[in-house]
Amino acid sequence: MTAQATRTAFVGATLIDGTGALPVADTAVVVGDGRITWVGARADLEHAPDLRIVDTGGKYMIPGLLDANVHLLIHVDPDVLLRYAPGCYDELVLEAAQIALRAGVTTVFDTWGPLESLRRVRDRINAGQAIGSRVFCAGNIIGNGGPYSADFFPNLGAGLSSSVVEAINRHWEQGVGAALTWMPAADVRVAVREYIATSDIDFVKYASSSHAHSRFLALSPDSQRAIVEEAHAAGMTVQACTQSPEALKAAIDAGVDLLQHGDVTGLHPMPEETLDRIVERRLPCVAFLYTQRHTTAFLERKPQWHGNDAWGEVMMVKDLNDRKLVKAGAMLLLGNDMGVYGPTAETSPMWGPFQSGIPDVPTHLGRSHIFWLRAAIERDMAPMDALLATTSNIAQAYGRLDELGTVEPGKRADLLILDADPLADPDNYARIAHVVKDGELVDRDRLPEHPVLTR
Amino acid sequence: MTAQATRTAFVGATLIDGTGALPVADTAVVVGDGRITWVGARADLEHAPDLRIVDTGGKYMIPGLLDANVHLLIHVDPDVLLRYAPGCYDELVLEAAQIALRAGVTTVFDTWGPLESLRRVRDRINAGQAIGSRVFCAGNIIGNGGPYSADFFPNLGAGLSSSVVEAINRHWEQGVGAALTWMPAADVRVAVREYIATSDIDFVKYASSSHAHSRFLALSPDSQRAIVEEAHAAGMTVQACTQSPEALKAAIDAGVDLLQHGDVTGLHPMPEETLDRIVERRLPCVAFLYTQRHTTAFLERKPQWHGNDAWGEVMMVKDLNDRKLVKAGAMLLLGNDMGVYGPTAETSPMWGPFQSGIPDVPTHLGRSHIFWLRAAIERDMAPMDALLATTSNIAQAYGRLDELGTVEPGKRADLLILDADPLADPDNYARIAHVVKDGELVDRDRLPEHPVLTR
Amino acid sequence: MTAQATRTAFVGATLIDGTGALPVADTAVVVGDGRITWVGARADLEHAPDLRIVDTGGKYMIPGLLDANVHLLIHVDPDVLLRYAPGCYDELVLEAAQIALRAGVTTVFDTWGPLESLRRVRDRINAGQAIGSRVFCAGNIIGNGGPYSADFFPNLGAGLSSSVVEAINRHWEQGVGAALTWMPAADVRVAVREYIATSDIDFVKYASSSHAHSRFLALSPDSQRAIVEEAHAAGMTVQACTQSPEALKAAIDAGVDLLQHGDVTGLHPMPEETLDRIVERRLPCVAFLYTQRHTTAFLERKPQWHGNDAWGEVMMVKDLNDRKLVKAGAMLLLGNDMGVYGPTAETSPMWGPFQSGIPDVPTHLGRSHIFWLRAAIERDMAPMDALLATTSNIAQAYGRLDELGTVEPGKRADLLILDADPLADPDNYARIAHVVKDGELVDRDRLPEHPVLTR
Amino acid sequence: MTAQATRTAFVGATLIDGTGALPVADTAVVVGDGRITWVGARADLEHAPDLRIVDTGGKYMIPGLLDANVHLLIHVDPDVLLRYAPGCYDELVLEAAQIALRAGVTTVFDTWGPLESLRRVRDRINAGQAIGSRVFCAGNIIGNGGPYSADFFPNLGAGLSSSVVEAINRHWEQGVGAALTWMPAADVRVAVREYIATSDIDFVKYASSSHAHSRFLALSPDSQRAIVEEAHAAGMTVQACTQSPEALKAAIDAGVDLLQHGDVTGLHPMPEETLDRIVERRLPCVAFLYTQRHTTAFLERKPQWHGNDAWGEVMMVKDLNDRKLVKAGAMLLLGNDMGVYGPTAETSPMWGPFQSGIPDVPTHLGRSHIFWLRAAIERDMAPMDALLATTSNIAQAYGRLDELGTVEPGKRADLLILDADPLADPDNYARIAHVVKDGELVDRDRLPEHPVLTR
Repeated sequence: MTAQATRTAFVGATLIDGTGALPVADTAVVVGDGRITWVGARADLEHAPDLRIVDTGGKYMIPGLLDANVHLLIHVDPDVLLRYAPGCYDELVLEAAQIALRAGVTTVFDTWGPLESLRRVRDRINAGQAIGSRVFCAGNIIGNGGPYSADFFPNLGAGLSSSVVEAINRHWEQGVGAALTWMPAADVRVAVREYIATSDIDFVKYASSSHAHSRFLALSPDSQRAIVEEAHAAGMTVQACTQSPEALKAAIDAGVDLLQHGDVTGLHPMPEETLDRIVERRLPCVAFLYTQRHTTAFLERKPQWHGNDAWGEVMMVKDLNDRKLVKAGAMLLLGNDMGVYGPTAETSPMWGPFQSGIPDVPTHLGRSHIFWLRAAIERDMAPMDALLATTSNIAQAYGRLDELGTVEPGKRADLLILDADPLADPDNYARIAHVVKDGELVDRDRLPEHPVLTR
Repeated sequence: MTAQATRTAFVGATLIDGTGALPVADTAVVVGDGRITWVGARADLEHAPDLRIVDTGGKYMIPGLLDANVHLLIHVDPDVLLRYAPGCYDELVLEAAQIALRAGVTTVFDTWGPLESLRRVRDRINAGQAIGSRVFCAGNIIGNGGPYSADFFPNLGAGLSSSVVEAINRHWEQGVGAALTWMPAADVRVAVREYIATSDIDFVKYASSSHAHSRFLALSPDSQRAIVEEAHAAGMTVQACTQSPEALKAAIDAGVDLLQHGDVTGLHPMPEETLDRIVERRLPCVAFLYTQRHTTAFLERKPQWHGNDAWGEVMMVKDLNDRKLVKAGAMLLLGNDMGVYGPTAETSPMWGPFQSGIPDVPTHLGRSHIFWLRAAIERDMAPMDALLATTSNIAQAYGRLDELGTVEPGKRADLLILDADPLADPDNYARIAHVVKDGELVDRDRLPEHPVLTR
Repeated sequence: MTAQATRTAFVGATLIDGTGALPVADTAVVVGDGRITWVGARADLEHAPDLRIVDTGGKYMIPGLLDANVHLLIHVDPDVLLRYAPGCYDELVLEAAQIALRAGVTTVFDTWGPLESLRRVRDRINAGQAIGSRVFCAGNIIGNGGPYSADFFPNLGAGLSSSVVEAINRHWEQGVGAALTWMPAADVRVAVREYIATSDIDFVKYASSSHAHSRFLALSPDSQRAIVEEAHAAGMTVQACTQSPEALKAAIDAGVDLLQHGDVTGLHPMPEETLDRIVERRLPCVAFLYTQRHTTAFLERKPQWHGNDAWGEVMMVKDLNDRKLVKAGAMLLLGNDMGVYGPTAETSPMWGPFQSGIPDVPTHLGRSHIFWLRAAIERDMAPMDALLATTSNIAQAYGRLDELGTVEPGKRADLLILDADPLADPDNYARIAHVVKDGELVDRDRLPEHPVLTR
Repeated sequence: MTAQATRTAFVGATLIDGTGALPVADTAVVVGDGRITWVGARADLEHAPDLRIVDTGGKYMIPGLLDANVHLLIHVDPDVLLRYAPGCYDELVLEAAQIALRAGVTTVFDTWGPLESLRRVRDRINAGQAIGSRVFCAGNIIGNGGPYSADFFPNLGAGLSSSVVEAINRHWEQGVGAALTWMPAADVRVAVREYIATSDIDFVKYASSSHAHSRFLALSPDSQRAIVEEAHAAGMTVQACTQSPEALKAAIDAGVDLLQHGDVTGLHPMPEETLDRIVERRLPCVAFLYTQRHTTAFLERKPQWHGNDAWGEVMMVKDLNDRKLVKAGAMLLLGNDMGVYGPTAETSPMWGPFQSGIPDVPTHLGRSHIFWLRAAIERDMAPMDALLATTSNIAQAYGRLDELGTVEPGKRADLLILDADPLADPDNYARIAHVVKDGELVDRDRLPEHPVLTR
């Protein structure tokens, strides 16, 4: 994983560079020192003795994929977490980062997780001490409690000692948990400033909607504005978790840079006025797209979410919003709470109803992005737009377009080389010839190196 | 119950007229046609043949009491409600109105209840067809569901058919229930306008805080402003239920006329800035004052409220706020969710923990206002201020000071005549000589005429 | 409703007399003073001036049906019971007795219910003061608690005050409730003796299996023997509720006269040895027969019963037992916990999953006996045996064959006259021409006279 | 840990040999090859060069203690068990065995636990490969499920995947779990025979009472007799878990050798007749003795056990039985479900209410036997009888008196040498000078060698 001394040329592929430009056949891309140094026609490539040639003739090259909403540790059931001392989940996080990388997702944005493990794994990968997707992380969703708190999955912690529950939750909460929802906005500002200053996070996420009781606002518009100002003052992008029309509007009013599942608006469709604002401002919006066959199976099952037995209706409203957003040309991003689940998730009181015996489960890191892409096509998104939703749109939304998201000189050399045209069929994103990260060919067969959940 | 043809003079009492003026000994008050027609020194009273004289020498006359926050039907357990067809609770409502009147509370503001029964009883009392306290009602708390919904007491309805639960909840919700929390503010406005136009309510109440999950905002600031505007456009006062600092601030910002239990701010004390605004604007604030011995016993019991096991801490924060509000001279109002409970409340899963075996229960209509007054004195409220908190402050807050709240010519002749000085000891409010409503002496021994819960 | 002074002859029907004899065409049956006085060939009927003739030519006459296991009050949800003072459910019981009678079920054995109402209705019917099926009742199942106790439907009482729950349960328990399961057998004997002596019941029923935790024995074999001895000493039949192989064996060993749902043996099929004893001793056994289409729909639904998620498997084992019992020629009796349900049962947390949207619900009094008969035929019971299972078998099992169960001189004149042959098709039991009880034609259109649940 | 080549003499102690004989001063006890080889007066001791002398002058020697009812792994909360692969709990079991040994409890009878770990640790200790108390184990309580089953602590497993729950339960159930309660007695016999033949257990325990629903019989008297016969045929002692009068009687009738907590008879005191049988037959009975101050604190707390809110009453009945058993001279044994708990037990939903902030917790292995002894004295047991209850009575009950339980030549050399007279004060059992097991001085300071729960 040390930087390459020599340069490598990927020669012959049809390039879809992620800028929205049309595909170009017979290209060559040169990488060196982890970056793209040259992009051009194959015919124009200057050969040199130290230039390693990788033949990609007949293949398709696109930017390494990004995922705007993952949770590298999401299978937070006791049988997983209690194997470790609280907070020491590095091997689970790394496993997930490697599963993502194997699938060509070279960059992930972790939007809720155990910060200490996330940071350690992120830093080891960045330092070349470990292999895996490039990780950016938010730590906690400001205003929410940890995994076994009332905001998330209290039923999973129902049989645990309260001291154990608290020790675990603390690793997610990081001092900006549910207590902030009780605070006046001025106190929220102070707490968030402290968090940003000390936590070594990459971006900020907060709860506009209550997570479990999603028709309520978790943080007031004043508190939201304070958070956005603090994030921006620190040079970070900031995003909000929204689940209702008013929470969505509050987040937009507060000035967020990214709407996390802005397509989920509960029992009421997104107002036209809000839709217009999202489109006109090109406000990046992660959409929770599900394939039609998943949606159908899901609705038959009448699942509950946090005891909400109208969840099916929420999903139908979401789908209506998705179709409108696509049609209006909103700037949508791939993301679906993807993470890695072990086999016990099949019978988990939390995950079983959502994952067991149902097709196209949208939340499996390394697989479900294909379902997302298919769902996008089903909803009439243009194939090129779907590609942008998984590449440059995300880089732009997170303020990383100078480094990531397209195949252009000067960018990080993250490339996904496919055996078939991804614009022809979303399944072709899974027909991987090579994954290149930081200019190096990934040995996909080795990943994950130390499988735990996927053993 | 028809209007008196003749006039009556109450002669000899020390008058504390509710304006804040000092007590005046040896007064006479003349009433006729339901109104106070003359107030003056006993010596100045002009006798006339048709003037009936009631000797109140040695007694104390104050305005009939008002209660700013009652629920005439609050014992909503299935064993009570299921005796009746859904919505047909008139006899329970009337019983409560009579119990209030018997105790000298001549006017009550019902802030959440089954609207149809409330209106019928209100109108019958106003028309002289029934005896009872004067009732003003809000119907639903806009944004909240009915008694067995997730917003209130779902555990009480846990064993009931969902069709029964829905039929009952509907009588509280009146079309402005939980669905409004999903709506964009513009739609909230439309729904509330319709409700005000068609419901024949007396004032408007809405949920700033979520009722059960009180750290969250139930309605966004935008929705709140829309509600306040609609209420004011219809000439009604509007109040908000708040339980956290940000919900309290949102309500004040929205322009409400009354803060319903503004002293309850959850786990975080009221910010000084908010306190200042309440004091400076003389914004009426119902305070949930509990006596010290109740508070002590309550905290020992570690009660839960809606599963919130930090409820004791919430009560301690409330008490802290109460002391600050009193000290700062805020305009406080009597109110404590008072209502009538039958004997089964003692073993109710909902009420038992709050009422069984604990002193000075603050929620018993007809009794608990004495505890409120005592609690006010314990918190260093001046006795005269306590009296105003139960009379003219409330009338003013509800925009009824032209008719109610003081003993002045032209006002409704609602009088409470006591055997001992209420400024000397709060218990003296219970030493009742006479209750006069609309100029008529109330035959207190007859009340309630048809006891149901208090049989 | 007084006894007829005159005699009536039913002339011309094909008689299936309930003795097991083959059908006889062209018969005449004479009834007077509530009894059958003569049975013979139509040709042999002696006409007399006072003999009223009812032409039943082309019709089929069978004994009035009996049901060996009903609960005249089974819809014990709070929305039903709380309309009444505890124990005052006479109108519900009478409604059910009339619904049974309307359907040709002229005698019912109530095996668990609120004794005081049952007795009052029974006695009023027997005295000719009310119309309805003839009722015999057991009161409580000795050893079980009331409807909201842990033995039955605690979830229905979950939202009720404990004092309300206790007041209601007491009307079922009658002093022989769950406390007896704690007692030594000698104390059980004393309690049961007292119960039999003072309760004015018609027969005795006790819990061999725990009702809710059906793999356990509720009463020890010693206690069971004591109960059987006391019942027999008092001249009563005694039956046991059994749900497992060992509970079934214990009941047989104890000497019971009737096995209540002896076909239900939990997760383990009935041992051959037990089956042989039932068959050889001709031990009457109520079987819970369900039609095939009900069984199929039921199993797909994966219902739970008392939290037992293996309930589907229990039902499959039951069906296996049923087929073996039929094949072996066991003495089976009609019975299926039939009772009357109002419309709110459709959405009841208790009954909804068992009754909503599922065909051939086996527990509806007045309808479900047809499903039972159809299920019997589906399981290869001979049509004549099915008829006996609903008539003379039951009379014999309850020691009432001298009075009930066949069309023979001297018996109570309870007759069911059908438009079509019941041996040809079970549905023909529902094609009712006349119901005769105690010699009188029942005006079926009037029934139930005062519908409550079936309004 | 290899056997000593030489002999050791403990010289000078007052010997209370566990036979019931009076204390003898100035004794000497010689041990060699793990056994007691000579017991006599100090003066009679023959010295030899290879005889190591341990001066025990001024001290008191008693047999190593036995505990008739421990669970070496009882803290079965997820935070403990999920650290390990299912069934691999050896280090927890060994820790507990060492904690027992450190406290002078040289032999323990584990009456419910994960068999495979128990056996491995037992065998390692017996082989001298590990140090710890001598372990005898029953494996499962026949008829009961595992720790997260409905029979024990389903609330602890409420948040776990069902596959995880099943994998764990299986290690306790060992094929003789709850399924046996459904079986006819003949099938129970077959299953138990197989279990005894293949499981390498030391004694047999079965459920006469249901564990969670203790007023019911889990296994019928016929099944119980089958189990007893099978155990005796295999040369094993057999015991029953009983919690009600009839379950106790059933166990005695079945011929068990030991009554496990026979003093617990639920809501009904032990019948005199049963008491007489226990006394007359000298049937060994583990009694759950609690100190008075524990009992008082416990009753104030109104704890529930398996949702049984009459648990306090059960404990009062138990105490009544205990006093009668002591007075009647029943053969009582020390035992109290003792095991080792880690710090998270303080806040466990299961254990917290029973252990947090309450004195003299009766279930802590290594400490609580002192409380048991004090409770025995409080209930007027003679000090010498208390000593027998913890030594020879237990050895006899388990058929091990030839090897264990007294200080006599030929026995295993398990000795407890105290600094003060145990007959003078139960606390003196904790004033340990030396623990000797198999003739070797235990290095108590080293124990437990690898603390996990007690770290």
